[in-house]
Amino acid sequence: MSESQPNEALIDLLALLAFGELQAFDRMAADARLAPDLHRRAVLCEMAASEIGHYRRLVDRLAVLGADTETAVEPFLDALEAYHDRTQPKDWLEALTKAYVGDAVADDFYREVATCLDEADRHLVLDVLHDTRHYEFAAAEIRAAIADDPKVANRLSMWARRLVGEALSQAQTVAATGPALIGLIAMSAPDQAGIIGLFRRLTDQHTRRMTAVGLNN
Amino acid sequence: MSESQPNEALIDLLALLAFGELQAFDRMAADARLAPDLHRRAVLCEMAASEIGHYRRLVDRLAVLGADTETAVEPFLDALEAYHDRTQPKDWLEALTKAYVGDAVADDFYREVATCLDEADRHLVLDVLHDTRHYEFAAAEIRAAIADDPKVANRLSMWARRLVGEALSQAQTVAATGPALIGLIAMSAPDQAGIIGLFRRLTDQHTRRMTAVGLNN
Repeated sequence: MSESQPNEALIDLLALLAFGELQAFDRMAADARLAPDLHRRAVLCEMAASEIGHYRRLVDRLAVLGADTETAVEPFLDALEAYHDRTQPKDWLEALTKAYVGDAVADDFYREVATCLDEADRHLVLDVLHDTRHYEFAAAEIRAAIADDPKVANRLSMWARRLVGEALSQAQTVAATGPALIGLIAMSAPDQAGIIGLFRRLTDQHTRRMTAVGLNN
Repeated sequence: MSESQPNEALIDLLALLAFGELQAFDRMAADARLAPDLHRRAVLCEMAASEIGHYRRLVDRLAVLGADTETAVEPFLDALEAYHDRTQPKDWLEALTKAYVGDAVADDFYREVATCLDEADRHLVLDVLHDTRHYEFAAAEIRAAIADDPKVANRLSMWARRLVGEALSQAQTVAATGPALIGLIAMSAPDQAGIIGLFRRLTDQHTRRMTAVGLNN
């Protein structure tokens, strides 16, 4: 982020990411109970555990910026919690689809926004996004389940559409709550064509991911 | 463990520890929601996350011994789950007291049993026991709560007694389920005086811990 840019947007962004890590930890830890065996349960627990190291890095960076994470995230809490409250997986495959679809859309978005940050903060944001291994594990499980029973594809496709709908609704509330964040997005997509391009890229990546595991957009 | 000793007891012990890690992760991740603020919530999440690395080390060692963790732990599942089902904390202080009192008694026991293992396995067992930092955090929270409201000491003392009672009941079931484990205990406490000594040491350490935070045994 350039020197002339106030820290407000950066603090909003890092606080959102930090609380997102804590929520992802909480959710994956709970979803691990849905696993069909101990091996898979442990993989989800490991995915959850990796979020906590990321949380600590974000909180430390926020402290350097003079921000308290709890205070910084407070305005966004309702929107962030509403998403998870409205998208509680009923079974193991819904839990993995949520990680595969929902987390990936959020990661793609943060990756786009990161392009307008200073190098150190850009690296921090890119580092704390989800590990590719996690997506590969989720993708392999979804593919195997569809191969086993093709009807699963329809159910999970509908679930994925609901996840994206809820994520967009939450993103709008977040954007309305933190106007400084809009400034960041505007920096990475400075005109209307740029913003349309940003959303097209996010949509394209999402469609590719759905197709890759046999889900219909 | 000496060469003449079959691996059965070692496998039982490592499987118990491994599943204990997974359960501790699950429980602390859930208890983190009881935290009064984000900072404390994150500390409990971090305590939970550290259990998962330990789980992986135990599973890897079990694989080297030719044992599948899921199969090995199966006979003990009911006893291990009964303990947690019967001791669900109602609030943040009960959750911390459970970590401080319950985990510590189990750790002391495993530390005693570890003395009769080969060096490599003894180090593994000692490494995966809970971090002193965790106990210090829990102890500081309990002490502060009692300083703030002395009546808390009575309530938590009663809770701690219940925890120890449930842990002993669970330990008896585990011992009855895995007779090979009794062999291990007998090795570390080869006569009746030895076993009485073992239980006296466990009791003394527990009493010291209770007194250290202002709880009554």
